Amino acid sequence: MRNRQILLKPDEIPRQWYNILADIKMNPPLGPDGKPISPDQLAPVFPMNLIEQEVSTKRWIDIPEEILDVLSIWHPTPLVRAYNLEKALDTPARIYFKNESVSPPGSHKPNTAVPQAYYNKVFGIKRITTETGAGQWGSALSFACCHYGLECKVFMVRISFDQKPYRKSMMAAWGGNCVPSPSMETKAGRDALELDPDTPGTLGIAISEAIEAAVADESGLTRYSLGSVLNHVMLHQTIIGLEAKRQLEKVNEYPDIVIGCAGGGSNFAGLAFPFAYDKIHGKKIEIYPVEPAGCPTLTKAPFVYDHGDTAKYTPLLPMYSLGHTFVPPPVHSGGLRYHGMAPTVSQLVDEGIFEARSVTQGNTYAAGVLAARTEGIIPAPETCHALALVVEEAKKAKEEGKEKVILFNWSGHGLLDLGAYEAYFAGNIKDIELSEQDLHGSEKVYADYPKPQHLKSRP
Amino acid sequence: MRNRQILLKPDEIPRQWYNILADIKMNPPLGPDGKPISPDQLAPVFPMNLIEQEVSTKRWIDIPEEILDVLSIWHPTPLVRAYNLEKALDTPARIYFKNESVSPPGSHKPNTAVPQAYYNKVFGIKRITTETGAGQWGSALSFACCHYGLECKVFMVRISFDQKPYRKSMMAAWGGNCVPSPSMETKAGRDALELDPDTPGTLGIAISEAIEAAVADESGLTRYSLGSVLNHVMLHQTIIGLEAKRQLEKVNEYPDIVIGCAGGGSNFAGLAFPFAYDKIHGKKIEIYPVEPAGCPTLTKAPFVYDHGDTAKYTPLLPMYSLGHTFVPPPVHSGGLRYHGMAPTVSQLVDEGIFEARSVTQGNTYAAGVLAARTEGIIPAPETCHALALVVEEAKKAKEEGKEKVILFNWSGHGLLDLGAYEAYFAGNIKDIELSEQDLHGSEKVYADYPKPQHLKSRP
Repeated sequence: MRNRQILLKPDEIPRQWYNILADIKMNPPLGPDGKPISPDQLAPVFPMNLIEQEVSTKRWIDIPEEILDVLSIWHPTPLVRAYNLEKALDTPARIYFKNESVSPPGSHKPNTAVPQAYYNKVFGIKRITTETGAGQWGSALSFACCHYGLECKVFMVRISFDQKPYRKSMMAAWGGNCVPSPSMETKAGRDALELDPDTPGTLGIAISEAIEAAVADESGLTRYSLGSVLNHVMLHQTIIGLEAKRQLEKVNEYPDIVIGCAGGGSNFAGLAFPFAYDKIHGKKIEIYPVEPAGCPTLTKAPFVYDHGDTAKYTPLLPMYSLGHTFVPPPVHSGGLRYHGMAPTVSQLVDEGIFEARSVTQGNTYAAGVLAARTEGIIPAPETCHALALVVEEAKKAKEEGKEKVILFNWSGHGLLDLGAYEAYFAGNIKDIELSEQDLHGSEKVYADYPKPQHLKSRP
Repeated sequence: MRNRQILLKPDEIPRQWYNILADIKMNPPLGPDGKPISPDQLAPVFPMNLIEQEVSTKRWIDIPEEILDVLSIWHPTPLVRAYNLEKALDTPARIYFKNESVSPPGSHKPNTAVPQAYYNKVFGIKRITTETGAGQWGSALSFACCHYGLECKVFMVRISFDQKPYRKSMMAAWGGNCVPSPSMETKAGRDALELDPDTPGTLGIAISEAIEAAVADESGLTRYSLGSVLNHVMLHQTIIGLEAKRQLEKVNEYPDIVIGCAGGGSNFAGLAFPFAYDKIHGKKIEIYPVEPAGCPTLTKAPFVYDHGDTAKYTPLLPMYSLGHTFVPPPVHSGGLRYHGMAPTVSQLVDEGIFEARSVTQGNTYAAGVLAARTEGIIPAPETCHALALVVEEAKKAKEEGKEKVILFNWSGHGLLDLGAYEAYFAGNIKDIELSEQDLHGSEKVYADYPKPQHLKSRP
């Protein structure tokens, strides 16, 4: 019997997160006045302990015991050698995946939801608001909040809310309260509905609603939480890559290729940053964020300063952006429909440490079904994007006759996204690919903003 | 940080199943003539290698490498110390659960689906038919069949098919073909629809349909597969209890109480049989199968000979039975709506090794939500029944001030059953409890059959 699961012992869980801000140079976030924002300006939105983490440049940050205690419900997660997938592809590549689908909410998202809830609790906060796309993040934050006795309010992008009715019940099971966005509960929501009563919603609008709902609480006991994009989110997710590295060491492997799907960037960054550290320091390794051709932030949009949300409540962030008013087509991978990208991921794409790729929907589900029938787990639609590139690279390795080691992140399972598989089997999944022409004009929304510098991280 | 997950290494997976037929006396299954059936009579329905396993009295049966290779996708499964649940209940009891929800289909069912598919494959079979209640079994068999290149056809009880639309897509993701039962594809189905076009369906009818569909294939390359009840199914499930025993040994524990929900009996037996062995041989231990008060097979029905299916295609089995025509009320735990019970489980209830308990629906979901909010995993409605008794016993331990060790089986997650949770939160879950009067008359269907003897297993 082959050992397909490479496990760490419970006490081998990482005790520190890796902070990539120690190793790269970043353009600062800018306030409404065009000047770098100060931590104080973020205080109405986030608790100060998380703001400190957001701006920290310390390379290693300790994980508090109270967080490890909750993470240990599902961590360390397995690293899996995908023998069956390799065999089906008849590839000389050795394929490994980090199985983040084993968390109770079914994805990598609780890796940061738990610390965020904890730090809010420690800061005296009673209630957290957030947005969610596909529902993975809202579920994760509901799960995390119930461990620390916090209330959780989730604004869910309407198209996903309608496609995935079970998500609301899932959040309710953990005590979370989920409403479709745009809602009538906020000005941002009401404005969006006035503009288009039939809008499928966007993450940008939902973020605006959640921020507004947090800041509007005059008791001062509500804060907002974001499931991706921000530095501290990427930081918390590095537990994925840190574990994966140790697990690969146990079988004397190091990846030639690292792959993760990228919407806001967090599951990709979580796996990739510890390897990006190696690449910044001279190691040869290919690292690919993968996005849908229907929302091609990294592959078709420029590196600019733009807002993270539609109502422009957030600071200007240095990132690849399709424009904060961009409404992506209704692709089924709700987690990959964001107009922007984490500034840290954007920075490393801009300087060539990461090479962005895009895939079309049909290919992603074909790869997802192949993965389900070989490795067993039905992948989330988001994960299917990573899988599509894994299949492509494994075939390339076969053509080249090279024994490459491919590592990817199985970011979540698709058990609450089976409607998307139903659409695929029924032939109703279209290959949406946005052209330069489709995107023409979307750059207008940030045309007058400052431009980020092209910085270099190499030491 | 406390080690909440007690893990076995990949190579500590059990290499043999425990066969309880070596340690108990059984009333034989009877044919239409009232005489014990011979293995040959089952040959049109099951492959001969599984029939041999069904009647074997060898205590330990080797698990083939080809089966271990697929089981290793999710086995060994974690044993978890439920620290958070203990704390919420403020109990001196130490609560452990075997987490069978980690399999790709989300329950313990693939523990037997994989061996059954394998033995069918080895015997030259190309296609397997089966029934499913809540959908856990149909999903598991679809998953198993795709690993061995077999076709899989699933008849799903209509009420569950309608309540859980994602199940069909889940089976399709693994290549399975699922239709609601009763269907027009079989005589058994057509008869049931003629009797009541609006029937919610029953497992009994679905079993009849699946057997008929298997036997009707003139090529001889189709067989039927049952996900519970039969001896070889219980045998395959003992991997649960065998692993749990080793895991408890690692932390120097032995349970005072073992709990599992029981529909056909397989997840309960899987956990309980290795401990039943100890009890038969003199160990003091309480072992409780738990069933819904709305389908009280073990707690309200007698130990009789009855058919396993509505159309009387199966032999007469010695078991607790509500009658093969019994239509249980539409409780949400579809996996616990069976009229009968595994003969091995029935035998051990009859002689007092197991003590059957029942719980009402409201209590089960209350326990399920408490479990979700403490231990993280949203339990399947079936598992909620085990949890309801765990809560009861943990409170009793508190009242008595006793440090009892409670072990139970977290048989599956409820991510495809969230509709039931939605109903619970909306106040639409009724406490259905069937009285002797409600059940009056159901015994007529087996009144003229032979009666099983009351046997004793003690060595």
